[in-house]
Amino acid sequence: MDSLSRRALLSVTAAGAAATVAASAGSRPAIAAAPQSGQQAPGFYRYKVGSIEITVVNDGVSRMPITEGFVENASKDAVNAALDAAFLERDFYAGPYNPIVINTGTKLALVDTGTGEQAFQASKGLNGRLPLSLAAAGIDPAAIDAVIISHYHGDHINGLLKADGSLAFPNAEILVPAAEHKFWTDDGERSRATKPRVVAGFANARRVMAGEVLKRLRTYDWGKEVIGGVTAIATPGHTPGHSSHVVSSGGKSVYVQADVTHAPFLFARHPEWHFMLDVDPVAAEATRRKVYDMLVADRMLVQGFHYPFPAVGHVEKSGAGYREVLVNWTAAI
Amino acid sequence: MDSLSRRALLSVTAAGAAATVAASAGSRPAIAAAPQSGQQAPGFYRYKVGSIEITVVNDGVSRMPITEGFVENASKDAVNAALDAAFLERDFYAGPYNPIVINTGTKLALVDTGTGEQAFQASKGLNGRLPLSLAAAGIDPAAIDAVIISHYHGDHINGLLKADGSLAFPNAEILVPAAEHKFWTDDGERSRATKPRVVAGFANARRVMAGEVLKRLRTYDWGKEVIGGVTAIATPGHTPGHSSHVVSSGGKSVYVQADVTHAPFLFARHPEWHFMLDVDPVAAEATRRKVYDMLVADRMLVQGFHYPFPAVGHVEKSGAGYREVLVNWTAAI
Repeated sequence: MDSLSRRALLSVTAAGAAATVAASAGSRPAIAAAPQSGQQAPGFYRYKVGSIEITVVNDGVSRMPITEGFVENASKDAVNAALDAAFLERDFYAGPYNPIVINTGTKLALVDTGTGEQAFQASKGLNGRLPLSLAAAGIDPAAIDAVIISHYHGDHINGLLKADGSLAFPNAEILVPAAEHKFWTDDGERSRATKPRVVAGFANARRVMAGEVLKRLRTYDWGKEVIGGVTAIATPGHTPGHSSHVVSSGGKSVYVQADVTHAPFLFARHPEWHFMLDVDPVAAEATRRKVYDMLVADRMLVQGFHYPFPAVGHVEKSGAGYREVLVNWTAAI
Repeated sequence: MDSLSRRALLSVTAAGAAATVAASAGSRPAIAAAPQSGQQAPGFYRYKVGSIEITVVNDGVSRMPITEGFVENASKDAVNAALDAAFLERDFYAGPYNPIVINTGTKLALVDTGTGEQAFQASKGLNGRLPLSLAAAGIDPAAIDAVIISHYHGDHINGLLKADGSLAFPNAEILVPAAEHKFWTDDGERSRATKPRVVAGFANARRVMAGEVLKRLRTYDWGKEVIGGVTAIATPGHTPGHSSHVVSSGGKSVYVQADVTHAPFLFARHPEWHFMLDVDPVAAEATRRKVYDMLVADRMLVQGFHYPFPAVGHVEKSGAGYREVLVNWTAAI
């Protein structure tokens, strides 16, 4: 049926205000039969903290099978029960990665880099998306003045390098926690490491934090500004030098927590859980409880690297643990 | 400082692996001082239900001051307490608008239209964004085969028309609930209306559902397919002909609830609240409890017109009410 005759039919069958006959529209041919897109929206989200503009730039997601030992002090069944409670697929950990770009007006800083362009775990194609998200957000990697690193795990540092080993942010200083740099470059610490994932972490950290990266590297200390408006906070445990950052402007602030919890649908709900990637899980739990009690008491905005995109919200008490309440998406920044 | 001398300085100050001096990077000039963007990401989100592709296309948000009577059986203080609990601004109702496009492979259907290009309430510029979101999602309004209307409130029908009064979707059939069309076109019903917002609703519905819209209008009945894969469900109360839709394909489904609850951070948390826009608030509450108990029992995916974007998730019991758990954003559709 062409569109002319179709329209003529419509004007007959849809008899004005009296048209109360049930439609059988399903049997009509489509005009367009538009192809399905298959493409998701770009993975970035913007918000303001005072005069500072923050852009969350999604790097994608991991997809790791959950085995016994994924949580050192909870069974795979217990983890699956938590996934059920969050309406998520059982047996897999889909951990999101969310770096942020902070534009202070005079500095453009990236906090953590995502997994990089090389294959990462068994999730190739699902992560390493930071360059796509930056491009969609109109942010030129060459315009990044500083890359602020929270800690030396691969999903936070591997994106410093392109697949060919060259610098992904060629004009950026690389600002790292002094305690973190000291730990991963200390041969004594390396020799004492026993957890397989920590041993592997030493090899990866030394591979990435070398060469051109090392030439641009400068360390920062806890309790001091890293760049104007961004203060480093000691949150050790997940790694010995693990750092969070508070971004402040005009009386507003956001607590950029990095990995104080890994994905909150597991580790905020269960602050007592010891994640297999924690270098010191007991210290990590103590830090987590202290930070989350503060976030709840102060009703403070929090940005979480492994929160579901856009990964910014507030935290409330929930049972014996905590629960994130993501901000309501808005087109108005 | 030019970039060459800056780099030379870096190579001196960042003394390789031994660089443990605290950074004073905040005092350095930026290379880029990139301008802040001020632009949010495009407001669309895609997911699949079996072989059907759904694109959520955000129309923006209202921003209505909350007065006594906003909830007929709860005080302004009680509403503000609910906003506090949701970490939202007091005294204002920021109600999101989220139409969806359903691509079945043979039909391209829009469910509800948003507020249109004309000024809407006191929120001009914050809503009427559907055309922007469609464009960003690569969806041509002329390719829409069908517009499926849930009910005749302005935020669901006004987008049928452009600001100049012409058809926003020139090739689409307009499929409306038979009971809804009957109510708003019935002079007896109009004469018996007393609530000011219902009286205004009659005037607006008759303004929009006229002329070229009326020529393309066909009614549908509850319990039947509106188009292939999309079945109409009776959910009366908010309006007498208010309809929800179940989209099904390949053993998967999503319940498109329209206004069974308005924004869930108020009306799912408090299913007993009677919203000032409900034509029959007692019937609306009964429908809401029935639908939400079913969503909880069946762990069914739900798409909510007034949910925070992307407005799709699951529902759990929470205290004396319900709580939505939005899906985790993913780049992989």
